[in-house]
Amino acid sequence: MAQSDRPLLARDDSRDSIREANEEDALLTGQASPTSRSERSRSQKYREAGLSVYAILATITIVALAIVVNHESRRAHAKTPGNRWGEHGKPTGKRNLIFMVSDGMGPASLSMTRSFRQYTEVLPKEDVLVLDEHLIGSSRTRSSNSLITDSAAGATAFSCGMKSYNGAISVLPDHTPCGTVLEAAKRAGYMTGLVVTTRLTDATPACFAAHVNSRAYEDIIAEQMVGNYPLGQTVDVLIGGGRCHFLPNTTEGSCRQDDTDVVKMAQEEFGYSYVDNRKDFDNLRGKSGVKLPLLALMAETDIPYEIDRVHMDDMYPSEAEMAQLALDVLEAATKDSDKGFFLMIEGSRIDHAGHGNDPAAQVREVLAHDKAFATVLDFLEDADAPGVVVGTSDHETGALAVGLQRKHEVYPVYAWYPSVLANASHSASYISHKWAAYLDSRTGQKASRKKKSEFIRHELFQKDFGIYDVLDEEVDSIIDATIFWPPSWIFADLISQRARIGWSSHGHTAVDVNIYASDPKHARALVGNHENTEVGKFLADFLEVDVEAVTRELVKKRMRTHDQGEDDWAWMGPMRPPFSEASHDQDLHAGLYRSRSGEHFEAQIHEGQVLA
Amino acid sequence: MAQSDRPLLARDDSRDSIREANEEDALLTGQASPTSRSERSRSQKYREAGLSVYAILATITIVALAIVVNHESRRAHAKTPGNRWGEHGKPTGKRNLIFMVSDGMGPASLSMTRSFRQYTEVLPKEDVLVLDEHLIGSSRTRSSNSLITDSAAGATAFSCGMKSYNGAISVLPDHTPCGTVLEAAKRAGYMTGLVVTTRLTDATPACFAAHVNSRAYEDIIAEQMVGNYPLGQTVDVLIGGGRCHFLPNTTEGSCRQDDTDVVKMAQEEFGYSYVDNRKDFDNLRGKSGVKLPLLALMAETDIPYEIDRVHMDDMYPSEAEMAQLALDVLEAATKDSDKGFFLMIEGSRIDHAGHGNDPAAQVREVLAHDKAFATVLDFLEDADAPGVVVGTSDHETGALAVGLQRKHEVYPVYAWYPSVLANASHSASYISHKWAAYLDSRTGQKASRKKKSEFIRHELFQKDFGIYDVLDEEVDSIIDATIFWPPSWIFADLISQRARIGWSSHGHTAVDVNIYASDPKHARALVGNHENTEVGKFLADFLEVDVEAVTRELVKKRMRTHDQGEDDWAWMGPMRPPFSEASHDQDLHAGLYRSRSGEHFEAQIHEGQVLA
Repeated sequence: MAQSDRPLLARDDSRDSIREANEEDALLTGQASPTSRSERSRSQKYREAGLSVYAILATITIVALAIVVNHESRRAHAKTPGNRWGEHGKPTGKRNLIFMVSDGMGPASLSMTRSFRQYTEVLPKEDVLVLDEHLIGSSRTRSSNSLITDSAAGATAFSCGMKSYNGAISVLPDHTPCGTVLEAAKRAGYMTGLVVTTRLTDATPACFAAHVNSRAYEDIIAEQMVGNYPLGQTVDVLIGGGRCHFLPNTTEGSCRQDDTDVVKMAQEEFGYSYVDNRKDFDNLRGKSGVKLPLLALMAETDIPYEIDRVHMDDMYPSEAEMAQLALDVLEAATKDSDKGFFLMIEGSRIDHAGHGNDPAAQVREVLAHDKAFATVLDFLEDADAPGVVVGTSDHETGALAVGLQRKHEVYPVYAWYPSVLANASHSASYISHKWAAYLDSRTGQKASRKKKSEFIRHELFQKDFGIYDVLDEEVDSIIDATIFWPPSWIFADLISQRARIGWSSHGHTAVDVNIYASDPKHARALVGNHENTEVGKFLADFLEVDVEAVTRELVKKRMRTHDQGEDDWAWMGPMRPPFSEASHDQDLHAGLYRSRSGEHFEAQIHEGQVLA
Repeated sequence: MAQSDRPLLARDDSRDSIREANEEDALLTGQASPTSRSERSRSQKYREAGLSVYAILATITIVALAIVVNHESRRAHAKTPGNRWGEHGKPTGKRNLIFMVSDGMGPASLSMTRSFRQYTEVLPKEDVLVLDEHLIGSSRTRSSNSLITDSAAGATAFSCGMKSYNGAISVLPDHTPCGTVLEAAKRAGYMTGLVVTTRLTDATPACFAAHVNSRAYEDIIAEQMVGNYPLGQTVDVLIGGGRCHFLPNTTEGSCRQDDTDVVKMAQEEFGYSYVDNRKDFDNLRGKSGVKLPLLALMAETDIPYEIDRVHMDDMYPSEAEMAQLALDVLEAATKDSDKGFFLMIEGSRIDHAGHGNDPAAQVREVLAHDKAFATVLDFLEDADAPGVVVGTSDHETGALAVGLQRKHEVYPVYAWYPSVLANASHSASYISHKWAAYLDSRTGQKASRKKKSEFIRHELFQKDFGIYDVLDEEVDSIIDATIFWPPSWIFADLISQRARIGWSSHGHTAVDVNIYASDPKHARALVGNHENTEVGKFLADFLEVDVEAVTRELVKKRMRTHDQGEDDWAWMGPMRPPFSEASHDQDLHAGLYRSRSGEHFEAQIHEGQVLA
């Protein structure tokens, strides 16, 4: 029985001290003075009875007060079994930190996804997402050189806690590297992990364990992430897509410029175990003693959109499944450590659906991320060590609006239609791939315009998109599409128009993004509206690790790992003029597009290529 | 002295009850049993002494525990001088509640306005709005009949704490009235006030002190708001625009359908003092003993947009000035009351700037509202009674995106340009009025197309909009504009394109809106993500008033105040088919447009007319 649950000062316990204090009390109360026996007896009786009653009342009062104190104390430390949490909401000892990035998810995505879910699952109006229940604030996202950030500057704010220029992978505006929370965590004895649904070499994950002058240098990033950089091996669990950047260009499925075999490098130089398919991935699940570090490259480029992945579940794991594996192996690996782990999990393709202006794909991406968030919450509830999950976005993508006045409509309509999104069973990206494949096929090559129209109408719009009221001019627009306004954008526009979902851009916008946490008490510094760098500072502060020490280490070891010149910093790739506000009329993008095997145009247009 | 400051159960206070309980105690403790006199005397003495010591120890324990409890309580209510705040963040006695509505302000408006302010006032990147510092959560806004609400259903959620159909002014989907927090506050002895920058008869203010089946019935609303409805006079301070609905149609400047003189009705039947110009308004400021109730109709329709108002400051007060007056007179009027006041302040025209898709006007509206919020915070700091300000929006308007990929741009740009908004000195609405006035003038009527082009280029674009790079086809689009895509929309589009601000609609969208509070501790129920009805419930709960009792009173008094038929509810105006999702293809708007003196088309297009 806890101290506070026990009645305080029960009568029996205090008898001895009462007896000891006997004489003193007699003096104090003046009982020794002589009076007539009967008077004395009566007054004694009254006094004694009075004292007894007072004592009883006092005892009741004490018990009542003790209950109040106990209650207050419990309120203040709710959900903190074993007092493993200190005064400022931080654990006192071993701890885990999971940081979740919902790339490109702005506030409108939540409203859209919540109503979509209510519609498809026939839930009441009040039903909300798991994320909704954990909203604690919002984050301002501008970068050092623009009011609209890209994912690289956004993730550098998280990883280093500092603003940098668009395109910067954990390097500062002066092109020196900044130590990251993941690197500092590793140095402090934590285990570390990165889980993403896009390429592991893409901006967000890259910022946690690589330093390059431009996000375009994904080949260099791949090498750095497995340890080929001044700090050596730092990430213990790497799960995601982007296999093509790890395979030598002599191999099928490579998109590297050179013949470096980064998988081999990871295995032989840095001790990674390697997995590249669903079957081997599944074999790791629920298994104890998975050998770390682990490199799991589950897709050549991106893991397919969730709306498409569910039809290929035997090939690709979901975000929640990858998150669960990472949590399990990291917990097992830190079982006997006095430090826990730091894990970043990214719902990467919410952003891609935004770039593609595809609302049917985006609601499924947000739901997949919501499920991953719930998976982490479940883990934390049962975890051996206390931990926190904090989630946020780097920026909004697509200029999404849940409500649309169609072209030439004089009056706006106050409604939107989740049913349209529910009817679609594939992404606009998938459908446009199918269209491109048809055009490449023997049937497609010899098909008349009429035959093509029929294919578009039946095989694409009706079968995959659930749209039956397609107009002739809409079919024509697909046939006549050019690379500059590709079919995937037209497909996405036609479903958006019907659902009344608006998009003002295929790029990013400046709106503040939401911040989530398992419990606001454990992320007090992030309650309310904050600069994105404060999120980064929170991460390092929660883990109590020293990112500046890592920066000093990087500066000290400014060695070259590539033969790219005399510069000490050559390992971070050549400097690029920062993507500045002033340069908005220049076409900075020209010449930066590299062909990528198996990818169609619309995959090229997302920020990775457009911004780099 | 407050209860918690007083030592609990001081000896003197409990003597009587000790004496009364004497006999019972004697029985319980078995003191009546016979023993030898000396034994009895000694045992009595021991027992008495023991009890005395116990009582002393118990008293010490009580005092110690009371100190602990008091300390915990103080910690929980830091910054609450005089212990006027109770356990759950609510004041223990007299209190004030200010509720601020930022009509149509979605999350993107904050980012846009913050960066605009940093730019124009040369502030650092980290500088934020006053509102930003007070973000506590967000609100879900859907109405009972659509995923996208209008302001009427939105304000009914706040006033009644219940969902209703788009267009409903504090009536429920079954067309029965629901009691409002303002009405319940009045019944409970609070003073009440409404301050708006639009017509006082518009949806948001109307929902607090009127009950009609459609927001279109502004003539009826005007009468109800001054007291001509079952509950009588309920609003003590009415400050805003909309004078035309209070003047009989026999008067210049009226927009009423009938000849009822609502100003006269307010003065003679309900005892209002009346003000209708800036000079008289200024005379009330800082003056003690302003006679309440007060009706201040400061504009024929809307108070001009802040971007235009600053050029007419001698005619129209700002939102902050109106708020300050309301706060001052309400505080003075409740000086000797044991109840405080409830005041609703609306930044009404953030919404109108959204409907007009005019970013230059909107940033000034948001700044004006931010200033009004700061004014309320200052008031609360020095106020006699403890109080809270809670702020939120009813919905987002305009599908605003801070970032825009212009038409035919293949690549999005990661920047937007506050400088473009800073260069504009007037709203698109003002400029289009000026254009219409020119066309109506003798000069305009006989002007050649070339002369008109010059006027547009120099007098409108350059002088009022600060745009010097206007293209010939842009000038032509103004000259050739029709009523269905009016000049004001074109002007707004041209400034938005240049600033790279996107709008997907002239109507509302479904994104969650922000919730603000003076202190999250005093609005704990609103921290995080909430249904808009929870905001309404918070208001009534904070004031501890009974809205359901008002509903019962309305049901009991279902009298007729108009001769519109036999129906007991006729005073709420005829029923209308609710504006439903299913009806999106019908043109519900036809025939609902009433001409309003001195107003141009774009003023008609805002939600008041479009939705009604």
